[in-house]
Amino acid sequence: MPIKLIKSKVMGTVKKTKKIGEDDPRRIVHSVKVGLALTLASLFYYLRPLYDGFGQAGMWAILTVVVVFEFTVGGTLSKCINRGVATLLAGALGLGAEYLADLCGDKGEPIVLGLFVFLLAAASTFTRFIPHIKTKYDYGVLIFILTFSLVAVSGYRVTQILQLAHQRLSTILMGGAMCVIISIFVCPVWAGQDLHNLVAGNIGKLATFLEGFGGESFTSQGDDGDKDKLFLHLHKSVLNSKATEESLANLAQWEPCHGRFIFRHPWKQYLKIGTFSRECACLIETLTGCINSKPQEAAPSEIELQIQPAFRKLSTESGKALKELASAIKNMTFPSSAVIENHLNNSKSAAEDLKTMLDNFSLSPNGKPDIQEIMTLLVIASLLTDIINCVEKISISVNELSEKARFRKENSTDNKQQRLIHCGVVNPVDDDERTVVIEIKETTLGDLILKDKH
Amino acid sequence: MPIKLIKSKVMGTVKKTKKIGEDDPRRIVHSVKVGLALTLASLFYYLRPLYDGFGQAGMWAILTVVVVFEFTVGGTLSKCINRGVATLLAGALGLGAEYLADLCGDKGEPIVLGLFVFLLAAASTFTRFIPHIKTKYDYGVLIFILTFSLVAVSGYRVTQILQLAHQRLSTILMGGAMCVIISIFVCPVWAGQDLHNLVAGNIGKLATFLEGFGGESFTSQGDDGDKDKLFLHLHKSVLNSKATEESLANLAQWEPCHGRFIFRHPWKQYLKIGTFSRECACLIETLTGCINSKPQEAAPSEIELQIQPAFRKLSTESGKALKELASAIKNMTFPSSAVIENHLNNSKSAAEDLKTMLDNFSLSPNGKPDIQEIMTLLVIASLLTDIINCVEKISISVNELSEKARFRKENSTDNKQQRLIHCGVVNPVDDDERTVVIEIKETTLGDLILKDKH
Repeated sequence: MPIKLIKSKVMGTVKKTKKIGEDDPRRIVHSVKVGLALTLASLFYYLRPLYDGFGQAGMWAILTVVVVFEFTVGGTLSKCINRGVATLLAGALGLGAEYLADLCGDKGEPIVLGLFVFLLAAASTFTRFIPHIKTKYDYGVLIFILTFSLVAVSGYRVTQILQLAHQRLSTILMGGAMCVIISIFVCPVWAGQDLHNLVAGNIGKLATFLEGFGGESFTSQGDDGDKDKLFLHLHKSVLNSKATEESLANLAQWEPCHGRFIFRHPWKQYLKIGTFSRECACLIETLTGCINSKPQEAAPSEIELQIQPAFRKLSTESGKALKELASAIKNMTFPSSAVIENHLNNSKSAAEDLKTMLDNFSLSPNGKPDIQEIMTLLVIASLLTDIINCVEKISISVNELSEKARFRKENSTDNKQQRLIHCGVVNPVDDDERTVVIEIKETTLGDLILKDKH
Repeated sequence: MPIKLIKSKVMGTVKKTKKIGEDDPRRIVHSVKVGLALTLASLFYYLRPLYDGFGQAGMWAILTVVVVFEFTVGGTLSKCINRGVATLLAGALGLGAEYLADLCGDKGEPIVLGLFVFLLAAASTFTRFIPHIKTKYDYGVLIFILTFSLVAVSGYRVTQILQLAHQRLSTILMGGAMCVIISIFVCPVWAGQDLHNLVAGNIGKLATFLEGFGGESFTSQGDDGDKDKLFLHLHKSVLNSKATEESLANLAQWEPCHGRFIFRHPWKQYLKIGTFSRECACLIETLTGCINSKPQEAAPSEIELQIQPAFRKLSTESGKALKELASAIKNMTFPSSAVIENHLNNSKSAAEDLKTMLDNFSLSPNGKPDIQEIMTLLVIASLLTDIINCVEKISISVNELSEKARFRKENSTDNKQQRLIHCGVVNPVDDDERTVVIEIKETTLGDLILKDKH
């Protein structure tokens, strides 16, 4: 049945391809945009007046479009600018080299030119290993070597070269301009926006994990395997997000201000938040390993049943704090520090409760408790405590971001109201505080917590 | 003092650049190789007979060299093959499109050709989002779009195109062949060898960490800060090695057999080992976080002093197992399973001892022990136990690699001797076993351990 086999293979490929388009429809739009730009560039050949003006140089417009058009605006701009500047610079240098070589006579010329090409190519290739140049100007250096070699070696006279350079530069400029205009004005894909969403989404994923972890029994039975796997997948994608974040941050620096992103938006701060998110994901990785290695019992033990509420509170509350941070980034508003501190304090107090409880268990006089079980619970508790610390670090860096990027501060009265309402929903650290909040309506919970600290 | 400032800045840049060359002198060699290839390519312009034969097409040799020459042999080969195949394919298709468009008359031609270019460019651009194509054939698809557009749009007659295609293809082939020959025969940089070294080196780093961790007191005082930082740095580079490993494995697949790497060397297996190494690095990350968060006391407590030998043994023995694995990969020999199992068993028994000790402490009748301290120690013990499990996984995957890649088996008598000698050095699991080994000299320790398991 080779025909059936081929048919099923083709159907499989079609399905996969369809899924790639469905996952991110911007990919389809991008493909259409490239097709459009290329068809426009080929006009250079068809329209007689243009063809007569530029001749074969029209080829460079097509070449530029194919090579320069990238998925994000930042990518397209960085390649265009790199290409333009490098071509100009290398052209000028090449011209100088040609002029110098010309002075050396007919026999000396090829030797001098060969030496120039060798030295410049070797030196430029070496600069491509410098990390700063590699991330930002790699393409520019490539074009620099290419153009310099072509100009120096072409063997034309200087006047001929100038005419050629004029033709090529103007076609390259036109091709580049076309790419930039299409990529900015036709359904633009901003690397900055993508980075912003990625970082917020990663924090959201961690929050979902922690909330889910708190909602479930952490010693779930086998039939919850699917859910566990979903969690595993969630934080794993966070763990491996470093390369994507760095490349997006690099491209975002090339983009002009757009939407609510100001010109000198603190893109580097996103990388800092990303680092802490990955640290947190690393702890979660250890946590899931810990839970999976735990023997799965039919029913939770007595100790587990007793400490479960504290566990649940600890995990859920830190998850809620992360969710607040994620939504603050997403909406570009200042994270409500009162709400977050409240959540963090709640989970810290839960951690304290947990510690006391486990302490009591391990010291219980009625016989030897199961040390193996307590050990696992202690480890989980300790990891969760570390996660709280990590959430605090994320919170601080998100605050820094919202200040540097001048996020919108929410309406202060609304905000206050919200905090007071929220205060009734979440469990406050202790009952005294709740009383104070109800009595002094002019003070927000955040101020109270801050005062409490000093 | 602007001159002084400039001078110091220049000196700084020079120093940094020098360091990049010193870190990996192959970079300097690579730069020289590129210069050499480019100078050779420029001969196409200088040598009259060649110039007359190829005309302007000589430009394509220079273009090919600049674009195709990569740091590794795999990179150069993959780009060459991609470029060659894509140019041929797109050229043929472009010719067909030109022929079809010709049939539609003078007015229809540009419309039909424009449509072809649009459809092909959009479809090809979309395929660049398919992960498999993106990793292996991205450059080929780019060249395919470029060549098809150039050929289809050029407006030449078919016979003219054929002549042009012949010129361009032969210059591209010459440029490509030059790059391949220089990159293979002049100080080659094999991506496969790099991947091999990277994976072995990463395991070695983890081993150094664990051995260092065991050698030191794990509750070191402040003045050991530098050493701690070195450790942190070591495993951090392992954590972030995923992208490098994947790109090297991808390039290695393009390389012919070289040195002791056979043609279908199991490059994917290295990625598997890498994943487990990163898992281990993640545990180490949590471990260092745990130690740093521990309050630094002036002197270790009584409990700590008592359990320290077990801790040290646990960590050092698993470190030794990893070191054995790293050196086995490096030397391309079968890892000595007896030695590794011995180390692992030693560290497992140390873990058991530790558990019992901590158990006794937490149940000690003489007053309440410091639960906080025991908790941290329990967490460290648990993490180290997880690390042992991870080392086992690494060991299994390295064994798989050595079988798949047909690593050299060491001389069996030498090996046996070595194992017996080693057996006296490391602490065996229990004393009975040592007796058995001395009595029955024909049996190796590995066999004994295996028998013991069944």
